[in-house]
Amino acid sequence: MQKIANLIVVKDNQVLLLKKPRRGWYVAPGGKMDPGESVYEAAAREFVEETGAKAVDPHLKGVYTMVITDDTGSHVKNEWMLYTFVAHDLVGKPFETTTEGELEWHPVESLETLPMAEGDRTNLLFAVSQIGMQYGTFLYTEEFKLLKEEIQSSKEG
Amino acid sequence: MQKIANLIVVKDNQVLLLKKPRRGWYVAPGGKMDPGESVYEAAAREFVEETGAKAVDPHLKGVYTMVITDDTGSHVKNEWMLYTFVAHDLVGKPFETTTEGELEWHPVESLETLPMAEGDRTNLLFAVSQIGMQYGTFLYTEEFKLLKEEIQSSKEG
Repeated sequence: MQKIANLIVVKDNQVLLLKKPRRGWYVAPGGKMDPGESVYEAAAREFVEETGAKAVDPHLKGVYTMVITDDTGSHVKNEWMLYTFVAHDLVGKPFETTTEGELEWHPVESLETLPMAEGDRTNLLFAVSQIGMQYGTFLYTEEFKLLKEEIQSSKEG
Repeated sequence: MQKIANLIVVKDNQVLLLKKPRRGWYVAPGGKMDPGESVYEAAAREFVEETGAKAVDPHLKGVYTMVITDDTGSHVKNEWMLYTFVAHDLVGKPFETTTEGELEWHPVESLETLPMAEGDRTNLLFAVSQIGMQYGTFLYTEEFKLLKEEIQSSKEG
């Protein structure tokens, strides 16, 4: 089962997003955890690899179970975990273009409207604007059409 | 890859622990995530199943990569994820004896000394006494001797 960690930096009311070439959808920089890595190490390492800059004090904001099914939602093809971190500063200047796509700063509010997977919108809006931790399950087709989402959240007691 | 969620309740300066019969080691109630479940749902469900009581507002405190190796630490046998939650109240009266072991209340401070896996001690002490989130990798032998731990932590920015 794969594990993916991503990290969204918010600075001066802007977020750093990666525009992927295939669909033109936006994602937060991230990628697959390596064996033996913690989720924190994976998020930090992937951010450096994809942006050339270092995120300052990343903090986990969401843990999501991603279920990929056929178009009817009835046959599960794959299941993986997504860990979404936020940071409020970075060191170094991010690349503009990478092999993964274009890195762009956008106003935080644009997360409401930029093209992206609908589950990512839920995750990233929570990460940049809410206190506490979010959890959930996203049911997607293989073409990343969101069939269903179930969300929970909690705050430090 | 397995995913395990556990949950420690702290109430009136006592923690609810499960004493496992095999070694007499203490653990927090928990168990394996079901397919399609979120980590939050798994922690809440497993707590009910193992204690008969419901935890109020569980909150994630730690995400750990658990690596099981041979006795020399050089050959990886298995890797799984552990999600540790805390709650500060419960509804209902916990069982005293279950098929999994004995449920017992102990002073929070006893987490320092009760017999348990050394990585669990690290996790549970953080969950009940620190602000923020902890991450890490624990390297264990198959007999649950801790060979190495690497820990990170973060706070809400």
